[in-house]
Amino acid sequence: MLLKMIKSEGIAHLSYILVDGAEAAVIDPRRDYDVYVELAEAEGARIRHIFETHRNEDYVIGSLDLARRTGATIHHGQAMDFAYGEPVTDGDSFEIGSLQLCVLETPGHTLESISLVIVDRSTGETPVGVFTGDALFVGDVGRTDFFPDRAREVAGMLYDSIFEKILPLGDQAILYPAHGAGSVCGDNMASREFSTLGHERLHNPALQHTERDDFIEYKLAEHHNQPAYFRRMEEYNKKGAPPMPVLPVAPPLSPDDVEAARDAGALLVDLRSPEAIAGASIPGSLAIPLDMLSAYAGYLIDYDYDLVFIPEEITDVSIAVRHLIRMGYDRFAGYLKGGLHAWEVSGRAYEQIPAVHAGDLDARLKQHEEFILLDVRKAVEFKTQRVSGAQHIFLGELQDRLDEIEKGKPIITFCGSGVRAIIAASILKRHGFEHVENSLGSMEACEKIGCSLEKG
Amino acid sequence: MLLKMIKSEGIAHLSYILVDGAEAAVIDPRRDYDVYVELAEAEGARIRHIFETHRNEDYVIGSLDLARRTGATIHHGQAMDFAYGEPVTDGDSFEIGSLQLCVLETPGHTLESISLVIVDRSTGETPVGVFTGDALFVGDVGRTDFFPDRAREVAGMLYDSIFEKILPLGDQAILYPAHGAGSVCGDNMASREFSTLGHERLHNPALQHTERDDFIEYKLAEHHNQPAYFRRMEEYNKKGAPPMPVLPVAPPLSPDDVEAARDAGALLVDLRSPEAIAGASIPGSLAIPLDMLSAYAGYLIDYDYDLVFIPEEITDVSIAVRHLIRMGYDRFAGYLKGGLHAWEVSGRAYEQIPAVHAGDLDARLKQHEEFILLDVRKAVEFKTQRVSGAQHIFLGELQDRLDEIEKGKPIITFCGSGVRAIIAASILKRHGFEHVENSLGSMEACEKIGCSLEKG
Amino acid sequence: MLLKMIKSEGIAHLSYILVDGAEAAVIDPRRDYDVYVELAEAEGARIRHIFETHRNEDYVIGSLDLARRTGATIHHGQAMDFAYGEPVTDGDSFEIGSLQLCVLETPGHTLESISLVIVDRSTGETPVGVFTGDALFVGDVGRTDFFPDRAREVAGMLYDSIFEKILPLGDQAILYPAHGAGSVCGDNMASREFSTLGHERLHNPALQHTERDDFIEYKLAEHHNQPAYFRRMEEYNKKGAPPMPVLPVAPPLSPDDVEAARDAGALLVDLRSPEAIAGASIPGSLAIPLDMLSAYAGYLIDYDYDLVFIPEEITDVSIAVRHLIRMGYDRFAGYLKGGLHAWEVSGRAYEQIPAVHAGDLDARLKQHEEFILLDVRKAVEFKTQRVSGAQHIFLGELQDRLDEIEKGKPIITFCGSGVRAIIAASILKRHGFEHVENSLGSMEACEKIGCSLEKG
Amino acid sequence: MLLKMIKSEGIAHLSYILVDGAEAAVIDPRRDYDVYVELAEAEGARIRHIFETHRNEDYVIGSLDLARRTGATIHHGQAMDFAYGEPVTDGDSFEIGSLQLCVLETPGHTLESISLVIVDRSTGETPVGVFTGDALFVGDVGRTDFFPDRAREVAGMLYDSIFEKILPLGDQAILYPAHGAGSVCGDNMASREFSTLGHERLHNPALQHTERDDFIEYKLAEHHNQPAYFRRMEEYNKKGAPPMPVLPVAPPLSPDDVEAARDAGALLVDLRSPEAIAGASIPGSLAIPLDMLSAYAGYLIDYDYDLVFIPEEITDVSIAVRHLIRMGYDRFAGYLKGGLHAWEVSGRAYEQIPAVHAGDLDARLKQHEEFILLDVRKAVEFKTQRVSGAQHIFLGELQDRLDEIEKGKPIITFCGSGVRAIIAASILKRHGFEHVENSLGSMEACEKIGCSLEKG
Repeated sequence: MLLKMIKSEGIAHLSYILVDGAEAAVIDPRRDYDVYVELAEAEGARIRHIFETHRNEDYVIGSLDLARRTGATIHHGQAMDFAYGEPVTDGDSFEIGSLQLCVLETPGHTLESISLVIVDRSTGETPVGVFTGDALFVGDVGRTDFFPDRAREVAGMLYDSIFEKILPLGDQAILYPAHGAGSVCGDNMASREFSTLGHERLHNPALQHTERDDFIEYKLAEHHNQPAYFRRMEEYNKKGAPPMPVLPVAPPLSPDDVEAARDAGALLVDLRSPEAIAGASIPGSLAIPLDMLSAYAGYLIDYDYDLVFIPEEITDVSIAVRHLIRMGYDRFAGYLKGGLHAWEVSGRAYEQIPAVHAGDLDARLKQHEEFILLDVRKAVEFKTQRVSGAQHIFLGELQDRLDEIEKGKPIITFCGSGVRAIIAASILKRHGFEHVENSLGSMEACEKIGCSLEKG
Repeated sequence: MLLKMIKSEGIAHLSYILVDGAEAAVIDPRRDYDVYVELAEAEGARIRHIFETHRNEDYVIGSLDLARRTGATIHHGQAMDFAYGEPVTDGDSFEIGSLQLCVLETPGHTLESISLVIVDRSTGETPVGVFTGDALFVGDVGRTDFFPDRAREVAGMLYDSIFEKILPLGDQAILYPAHGAGSVCGDNMASREFSTLGHERLHNPALQHTERDDFIEYKLAEHHNQPAYFRRMEEYNKKGAPPMPVLPVAPPLSPDDVEAARDAGALLVDLRSPEAIAGASIPGSLAIPLDMLSAYAGYLIDYDYDLVFIPEEITDVSIAVRHLIRMGYDRFAGYLKGGLHAWEVSGRAYEQIPAVHAGDLDARLKQHEEFILLDVRKAVEFKTQRVSGAQHIFLGELQDRLDEIEKGKPIITFCGSGVRAIIAASILKRHGFEHVENSLGSMEACEKIGCSLEKG
Repeated sequence: MLLKMIKSEGIAHLSYILVDGAEAAVIDPRRDYDVYVELAEAEGARIRHIFETHRNEDYVIGSLDLARRTGATIHHGQAMDFAYGEPVTDGDSFEIGSLQLCVLETPGHTLESISLVIVDRSTGETPVGVFTGDALFVGDVGRTDFFPDRAREVAGMLYDSIFEKILPLGDQAILYPAHGAGSVCGDNMASREFSTLGHERLHNPALQHTERDDFIEYKLAEHHNQPAYFRRMEEYNKKGAPPMPVLPVAPPLSPDDVEAARDAGALLVDLRSPEAIAGASIPGSLAIPLDMLSAYAGYLIDYDYDLVFIPEEITDVSIAVRHLIRMGYDRFAGYLKGGLHAWEVSGRAYEQIPAVHAGDLDARLKQHEEFILLDVRKAVEFKTQRVSGAQHIFLGELQDRLDEIEKGKPIITFCGSGVRAIIAASILKRHGFEHVENSLGSMEACEKIGCSLEKG
Repeated sequence: MLLKMIKSEGIAHLSYILVDGAEAAVIDPRRDYDVYVELAEAEGARIRHIFETHRNEDYVIGSLDLARRTGATIHHGQAMDFAYGEPVTDGDSFEIGSLQLCVLETPGHTLESISLVIVDRSTGETPVGVFTGDALFVGDVGRTDFFPDRAREVAGMLYDSIFEKILPLGDQAILYPAHGAGSVCGDNMASREFSTLGHERLHNPALQHTERDDFIEYKLAEHHNQPAYFRRMEEYNKKGAPPMPVLPVAPPLSPDDVEAARDAGALLVDLRSPEAIAGASIPGSLAIPLDMLSAYAGYLIDYDYDLVFIPEEITDVSIAVRHLIRMGYDRFAGYLKGGLHAWEVSGRAYEQIPAVHAGDLDARLKQHEEFILLDVRKAVEFKTQRVSGAQHIFLGELQDRLDEIEKGKPIITFCGSGVRAIIAASILKRHGFEHVENSLGSMEACEKIGCSLEKG
């Protein structure tokens, strides 16, 4: 028997394969589905069932491609009309070797959300664990902001799903959620990836709101951002995404090729570290360090661009491609072979972004130097603590709100630690702002050295 | 945060590495410790602590080598006087990043057994999980037969450890035991490797004996075998095993080399499948199919032999070496390059062992053909169900009880499915028995075709 | 710069990838083309050109799939009318970074055969190496038996290609042929995989026939077998094989499934070792040990069968699939999960094939025991040396010549070392011969112990 | 038969393993010798012989550790008195399976240099290939500057070795040298890693000096640098280096740890890209981008430092350790976990180095802006082509010649493409120079945009 979590870094998506004997089931497969096929093959099992806990909005689900490859049947909740797969309903159950997977409809995050209860009949009927999708996480619960006009109703649904259906499975049930820390699907998920219903019942902050109305108010007070790409994901995951039997390969490009592509309208995406971007970058490129790609591509990259990557290492390219095809991007024009070094030795001009450390920033603030400190963190972060006088525009919205920034003034971009700030700096430079500096270290560093901060 | 189980096949030993931030702890490391070093390195962590849940008797613990390599501190229970490491006691606790590992003395299986409770203070004081060593498994509890003259006392200790200390940690705590299904440390472990205290409390057969006296009687009624190698393991694990910074390499040998080694007293260990052994094998070799090596080497192979392997694939050799060094063997003279094929084309003689399928066996039994059906399963298996008239000698004791077998009569060896039977057949042939056949399929096949069987 | 040989075991096919800077070329890609894509990706190169040295007859070429995946252009000799790709002619040349690949038409093995000369202009015009396809090998030259009615003409063509075009490139040129030892495309290839034109000129046995007529006579005297599958390969490679973007997966089957498949007409292919097959096998299965699969599947397996594998290890299955899709097979019904052990414990009957070692065989021959010694080696092997009185039928023709074997007599199958003999034994048993034994060791063993042998 | 080249990036060292049947030989093993053990194990061979073509001066040879692990015998030329191994002399030969390795004494580069001729007796006596050590490379010959007072004599020896002993082996012999492009052991090696004696005879620039005196003059006119670490290598390789059974592990450090280590005298080695170093770096660190580590560590890092790495990726650390232990370094204090980002968010100050692209540099030169253009390339590069007015100090000597640089003036560091320039910039900043800029792109970029350059 094998129960393995497959984690997709970046979107912090957790999928699972459950194998017993010669049979396997996959829960919420990602689009680059090769990992499940390989695991099943190594175990000598055939993937019989694919379950979608809900119509995901933050990545392209790989069910259709995986089903084409394996002949498995796809199952999802009956409360939505999918263009493929089989609807399941409360009480349906499926056998995977000696295990049972029992369906529990658990709406709230979406209407057709389901949970899947693992029962090992060979030892007893008590649930061993439960796949909760986006209903319940380690340290948080699912967002309920996808139906703004039914906000109260769906928050109540989630309460019922969790308190009436999931928690009654018992403290002993192990929790297998669809996301971990870092996901856009929740703000408070724990970095610990193992927990039980019992532990969550006692310590999950959201579950301390045990009264239905209290829980609903708590959920209504939350604020979540919706990246632009969510709409495409919803469409893909309802109708089925275009087939992708093998991963695309982004070819190497020379500096000439890259310049030509840029001139023809391609978007240059710089995947390197904030420090490297600060040190030298191609004019007109959009900086999104690889670690941030999954989190911000959906806000900042339109699907209509051909994409050209500027990588640090050649291996970054295939990681970027994997991350982006999971979000439905598929126009990969190539990457700059040799990285920025190749651009530099071609004799072309490059730019540098001055980096401002916390001590420097503090001194300039105290001297009342005139500049805009542009804080691009999420609203909730800014609200909690901020440098006095900072202007706030959330990074995901920056491209659309550039006219809110006073022209001509020097700008220092600022965020939690300096990474989102470099993205912001690159956006500003792409749009003609000239005096742009970046605070590597940002809030974390300011806290450490004791800058004066406003709170609450 | 990372909590990863490392499974050593064969002995079904489960060790763990727990990483948070730049710190790591290892629980019950095996002797080929490279896996922990590599995992810690990949996570950017330093192994600070090594915990031994108890002085293991079924494998050589790798604490000392791992500590030498990493500078970590070794901890074990204070109730035994180890020649190395630091004693810990109830209530001691250790920090691994933001996690806490709290010591619980849980004697019974051995006197100095400890459990280690995982607390994640960032979410709450309730235990998230517990490393239970050989106190509590998924589906079973630890054996308590190591102190025959204090049998009742130690069974009671185990009761107290489980019912007074471990189960009170709460149903929500995830169970991380030191062994899984297939271990010699318990007969009833489940193949499912994930469970919680809550699930075990409800369904673990041993834990249904909730009355102390009842539990003690249940434990006293158990029968366990003690392979000969346990004594050496105990000695090694108390004093510290010889250092082994890198794994030994068994060199390739020609048929001439193998013959010379055999004539000089080396033991030829045939690692191939039962079918291949049945088809052709080297006279005088001891057959132990690779899958069975960990389970039966400790019974059947004396430490004083130089070992020569007869592998199916070249990769079998390093697996065999890994398995055997975990049990303290270290005299690897080499392996027959090219496998049995090389022996055959050298012009040397080989032997064949006739294979008897269930239908054939059934017919011969019904015709009252005269032969000894030698059943080599464990006593408890034989007691549960057997072919009428079969003679029983447990495989682990066969080499010492050959004189109980009537000379001159044909013998058919028999076990659960035919694998242990081929080992038995090879032992018999090594010791001069001539008419030896082997029942590939054995009891499983007999059940399937409805042979007449005695039960209970 | 990278020049890497990719060897396909079994058919001993050698393909190559040549990379310089951001450009790559592939010579004679196999059907499972993933290896070239991965190598090019790791080097940061784009595969621009695919060369087919000739229309291969012993495997499915992967040009079309590889071109679809990479956008590369396919090139082959102009002397045949392919349904895809671009014809090239003497003197065409292609740049791969700073290297040049120059086309040399080198007919003989086939009419459209080409060689590709590697020139590194940065150091000088002298050829550094040459891809010779099936014109010239290490230790042999290409077969010229594909145009029986033009035999003398094509042998002469090959002479001209080698002596007038290839050897004049100079002793210093490194030789990169399309096959190595073990290929059906030549009998005398060396196990050494590195050589130069100079070394071959001096030592290649075929090249010692420096007179044109002498060379032609030498070639005409050769005898080669043509496996049945050659015809399909020719068709596929002329028209383009069916697309195969990802490798097929053979699913696990239970003994019930396997029996049902066999009863429905599927062919059970036993991939295990000769010893394991001798020990126990499924009635009606065709034994082809995995190492022999590429060499004999094309003779013995019809394309119309659904195939069910009986593997030793689970990893054997994907190797078998890889090998067979290279030969155009694509009907993989699955494999017996758990191998023969699963069949045995299901209670089903199995068979055993007695194994006869050389000493035993010798004794039985000397006692004039009555049996047919069926030698299934190639004609040239049999002609060179044989056991007196042996009957010869080449293994590749055995299925079609069973009526040449006297019915009712015991048979001992015999070959070079015992592997082909077990295949022959399994064929005989499938076709109702009852008293079949197999000589594991066969000729090699007979030589070693000094059996009396006829020669010449 | 297997002949595999193992390339050690950085020092461009080429070692080889030659396997036939169950025997293997290794030529010039590196210190991290695991690769040879694993290859031999996978082939089923035992390493019997280790050959050192000469007492290497640019890396620690791994013969002793490899011999300890495998029991192999070490061989080297008789003309030097090694503290270990067996001396060999002209005409000695060794069998590896069916191959022969024949010793040829080929002094010149060093006095005890040997070559090893590969003969495959199964095909003929003509040499198939030759391991030439540092006597003959692809595109160059060995340096002969290690005996300054016998310069003419040893250059003559090399002539005799190549023209009298190696080239007479025949054009057909494949060349297997001990170094490839990028090595400090020659300036003109080709990036192509395959060649033959025939090709070199015709095109190797050094071999065009076919007259002995002419060749000697050619060699005497060469200029080579000798990194400081050569002395330690010579000592280690003559006496045997300290044993190293397993690779050291550099542990993770926090910014506090790193600061404390630096304050206690440790050297911080920044392994990141030039751009990242330009963007932000730790004051006092020495920048050596990972790709340059093997080439410049030996010049710039004293053996007495504890080393702390500043990596881009965690995987850089073990690569750095591998590269440095090959050069005899063994004091690895750790690495900054989380890279420079961790330092930034700790609130500590960091530095930025302005980057000057070619267009900018050209403009500033034309405006006669006052600055020192410090060119740190090798003398031969500077002599060939330079920016007018540039000051030249070779990077390897910069730390010792800082007093040649005028104080107080702005400096722009300059090299071939900008990588060595960033190392130079970091050295200057470490030593108190304040106005330091760096020309990313440097000479390559200047050429591309047509800066005015002096030549010859």
